[in-house]
Amino acid sequence: MFVLDSRLQLDTVVLGDFALCQLLLSKDANYPWFILVPKRPGVSELFDLDAAEQHQLWQETTQLAVALKASYGADKMNVATLGNVVSQLHMHVIVRMQGDAAWPAPVWGKCPAVSYSDEQVQVIRQRVRALQLEGFKEAADVA
Amino acid sequence: MFVLDSRLQLDTVVLGDFALCQLLLSKDANYPWFILVPKRPGVSELFDLDAAEQHQLWQETTQLAVALKASYGADKMNVATLGNVVSQLHMHVIVRMQGDAAWPAPVWGKCPAVSYSDEQVQVIRQRVRALQLEGFKEAADVA
Repeated sequence: MFVLDSRLQLDTVVLGDFALCQLLLSKDANYPWFILVPKRPGVSELFDLDAAEQHQLWQETTQLAVALKASYGADKMNVATLGNVVSQLHMHVIVRMQGDAAWPAPVWGKCPAVSYSDEQVQVIRQRVRALQLEGFKEAADVA
Repeated sequence: MFVLDSRLQLDTVVLGDFALCQLLLSKDANYPWFILVPKRPGVSELFDLDAAEQHQLWQETTQLAVALKASYGADKMNVATLGNVVSQLHMHVIVRMQGDAAWPAPVWGKCPAVSYSDEQVQVIRQRVRALQLEGFKEAADVA
C-alpha cells in the first residue's frame, strides 16, 4: 500500500491526485515548488516503475511543467528527481524566476524555507484548479 | 543547426551520441556525472521537444540511469534538468554514493570540481562502452 513518506508529509501540502501521482506543494513560499509522488509502494528510482508507469510519470510531469510555466510566466522550470534524503520516488517541478531567492542556484539547501499563510495556499489551490490539468482530482482542503 | 553550448563545451568531455542526445561527462571527478543534451537547436525546456523527442529523451535518460546504477553500484541516481545558468536543454544523470563529496546534498555548487586525469577519462570511456547502451555511438577520443 502506498503511504506518503513522513518527511514529505511534514514538508508539503497535498493538492490532489493524478492517475499515477499525488501532487504536493512544498511548504516554502520562496518558490512555487511542486512535487509529484507516484502512488506505488517501495519505489525509489524512476526505473523501479514499470514502462507504462514511467510513461505516465513523464506525462504528468511534463503537463504540469508546461502549465505552470505559462501560469507563472516562469523563466525556467526545474525538473528533478534526487532522493538522497527521502528515498520514496518524487519528482520536483519548480517554477524559477530570475531574481528568486536562490537564482540561479538550485533551490535545495540554498535558503531557509519561508512559510505560507493559509490564504496563500488557497490562492495556489485556485491557481492549480484553473490549470485544468488532465486527470487531476483536487484534494479536499483539510487545513 | 545544433551547437553545444560554450559552457558545456568547457566543462565536459564528449563521450558519444545517442539517436537524440549527445552524452557528456562533467569534468568533475567528485562524482560520475553524465549529461545528455538533445541535439536540437533552440531547445530549453523538456516540452520544447516534440512528443516523440520527449519520449526518446526519457528513454535515453532511463536506459543510462539504469545501466550506471548497476555498473557503479550507486546508492541513488540523481536525474535533473535545471538550466538556470545554461539554457540549452540538458539532463543531468549523476551517480551518487553515500559519503561522496556532497552527499546527501545535490551536487551543484556544493564542492569545487576535481579534475580528471586523461587516464581516468579513458577508464570511464571504457566503462561506458561496456554498458552496451542501445543506440550509442562512441565519440572518437580527440583528447
